[in-house]
Amino acid sequence: MQLSIFAAVMKRFYFTPGPSQLYFTVEEHIKSALRENIPAISHRSNSFQDIFGSATQLLKQLFSLPSGYHIFFTGSATEIWERSIQNLVEFESCHFVNGAFSRRYAGIAENLNKKTTMINADEGKVVDIESVLIPESCELIAMTQNETSTGASHAVEDVKKIREGFPDQLLSLDVVSCAPYANIDYSMVDMAYLSVQKCFGLPAGLGVWIVNDRCINKSEELLSKGLSIGSYHSLPELMLKAQKNQTPETPNVLGIYLLGKVAEDMLTKGLDMIRRETDYKAAVLYNAFEQSKLLEPFVKEKINRSKTTLVAETSVASSEILDKTVQKGMVIGNGYGPFKGKHIRIANFPTHSKEQIESLADELLKIGDQ
Amino acid sequence: MQLSIFAAVMKRFYFTPGPSQLYFTVEEHIKSALRENIPAISHRSNSFQDIFGSATQLLKQLFSLPSGYHIFFTGSATEIWERSIQNLVEFESCHFVNGAFSRRYAGIAENLNKKTTMINADEGKVVDIESVLIPESCELIAMTQNETSTGASHAVEDVKKIREGFPDQLLSLDVVSCAPYANIDYSMVDMAYLSVQKCFGLPAGLGVWIVNDRCINKSEELLSKGLSIGSYHSLPELMLKAQKNQTPETPNVLGIYLLGKVAEDMLTKGLDMIRRETDYKAAVLYNAFEQSKLLEPFVKEKINRSKTTLVAETSVASSEILDKTVQKGMVIGNGYGPFKGKHIRIANFPTHSKEQIESLADELLKIGDQ
Repeated sequence: MQLSIFAAVMKRFYFTPGPSQLYFTVEEHIKSALRENIPAISHRSNSFQDIFGSATQLLKQLFSLPSGYHIFFTGSATEIWERSIQNLVEFESCHFVNGAFSRRYAGIAENLNKKTTMINADEGKVVDIESVLIPESCELIAMTQNETSTGASHAVEDVKKIREGFPDQLLSLDVVSCAPYANIDYSMVDMAYLSVQKCFGLPAGLGVWIVNDRCINKSEELLSKGLSIGSYHSLPELMLKAQKNQTPETPNVLGIYLLGKVAEDMLTKGLDMIRRETDYKAAVLYNAFEQSKLLEPFVKEKINRSKTTLVAETSVASSEILDKTVQKGMVIGNGYGPFKGKHIRIANFPTHSKEQIESLADELLKIGDQ
Repeated sequence: MQLSIFAAVMKRFYFTPGPSQLYFTVEEHIKSALRENIPAISHRSNSFQDIFGSATQLLKQLFSLPSGYHIFFTGSATEIWERSIQNLVEFESCHFVNGAFSRRYAGIAENLNKKTTMINADEGKVVDIESVLIPESCELIAMTQNETSTGASHAVEDVKKIREGFPDQLLSLDVVSCAPYANIDYSMVDMAYLSVQKCFGLPAGLGVWIVNDRCINKSEELLSKGLSIGSYHSLPELMLKAQKNQTPETPNVLGIYLLGKVAEDMLTKGLDMIRRETDYKAAVLYNAFEQSKLLEPFVKEKINRSKTTLVAETSVASSEILDKTVQKGMVIGNGYGPFKGKHIRIANFPTHSKEQIESLADELLKIGDQ
């Protein structure tokens, strides 16, 4: 009883797979933004152009983007699913489906009346790259590097294999819940996308779309055929404004400002360090999953186990584990969709420190021993 | 010289017509949100459902929405232009064009390959409601209550006249830069929309879409014909989630939280008081426009002069006036589009106090006397 009173006043710390705990510098950046009156500035002002230019340059640096790659902002990664189909697919797209989120991308293509081919993996696995057959007529191949719903993750080499096997198709890569941890060679893909409430630890409401010139050309080709590719967020419109460090609409200015600041913080810390820490923390958690009597990693193939969104099957109702961790002020995620009640999901993002992950792992082990 | 050094360290106060100065309570609400860890909560949690339910209820109260009207959230008002055409127009829309923003709505309909009819007013005027001819085949009529680019505003009675004249068409009303000041009877329109960085004084990155059941039905009718009405932000998808106090995508959770808080603050202050103050402050500013040797109200018909976004023609380059007010820490807007350099635009939003508007008016008069 005393414990639960204590928990009620304790500040909760979020290990949920997005939205998740804010990156530890964000609160200070928000205070700076308010001091500088960032939310009041015009999105057509030089001040905004500086913010946009700085954020996109820092992201290009963080992702080591080659030349001919551009960064655009949308309201969400969900929006990028829709915009990418609208701008890049006339008839047909092909989707590697590792779970609920990659399936939803295909669903959005169907909503836009496109023919879709789904190449399905069993839940907890990824599509076997060696054996995929893709229709010649397919214009875009969609891969999900890290499937947030199941914690199944492609080896980064898989992207290269698909690129080499299918040079004519546009290749779209979902890095929503693994960028910038995943060491992707972006020259292997034509577009990629993420949302800021995952590894970047920012308030939700902003999607980041990485796009190369092949994509711009394809969207212009569709437009020249008289097809609609949307309006203010079509690739040509986004490009036209981005060349002036602007956006077509009044965007989430504060979000773009904060994203630039966090990208800078991550560059200062160093991606190598972030990756090493992520690997260490993932090992600590998977070890706890394997040691606990109540848990087992959902993804059986070690190479496909996500380092950023870790999923364990539970031998008791997962709510029992969620309730116990929350009493310690640690909020973890429930299973997604059909796995609600049967899985726990844990975010291992750059904001989650080694000490915090170790405490969580200890707690999971203690719960298993009770 | 001393003055400009002083100005360089002075915190600027924004009278720009959106984004504009934050509503005076927002900074405290952001701090509360950070204390409560709002950006970290899941958009599928009960906590989010409470935030969504509270914000939409308070907005319904603030706008006195009749039953059968729903509130949905998008990334921007620009998005609502696109979504409304996508969901509500099979062939043809009709647009009353009072300036650049109402013209852009028509442009977006054209981007979506719809037939559009534009009924144009001269800049600084509004369409003469008594004389409009609208094709029978038109499915949606778009009116802009307050044109932010020119400061031309319809009398609220004009909406009623159009409703009565065209009961069969869907009527879409842009209240982007006048809600909740404008005393609109929303039962007269089928949809309306705004963005939060105007009168609500919030960080940009959120659009508010008010929609009635006729709109939902129309979108379902288009869908049943096999037409694409978009995907995650189609009206049926938005409705399905809103019934659970949720959104289809991970939304701008912080923005929705803050909007609910400001709506509550406005209800506490009272809309009558906000409207009376707005009228008083608008009178002070228009008086300064008329008294100043350098300024003249751009909108000649007094009944069509916006009370929330006031525009004056300048007899000198408008930058001269902008530079002088900014030296006093007051940022006002330049003319829009072709009127850049020839107009000033001033926001008179609920966050701009009587004292601040009086100071600005004094300053404008002083500049005219120099």
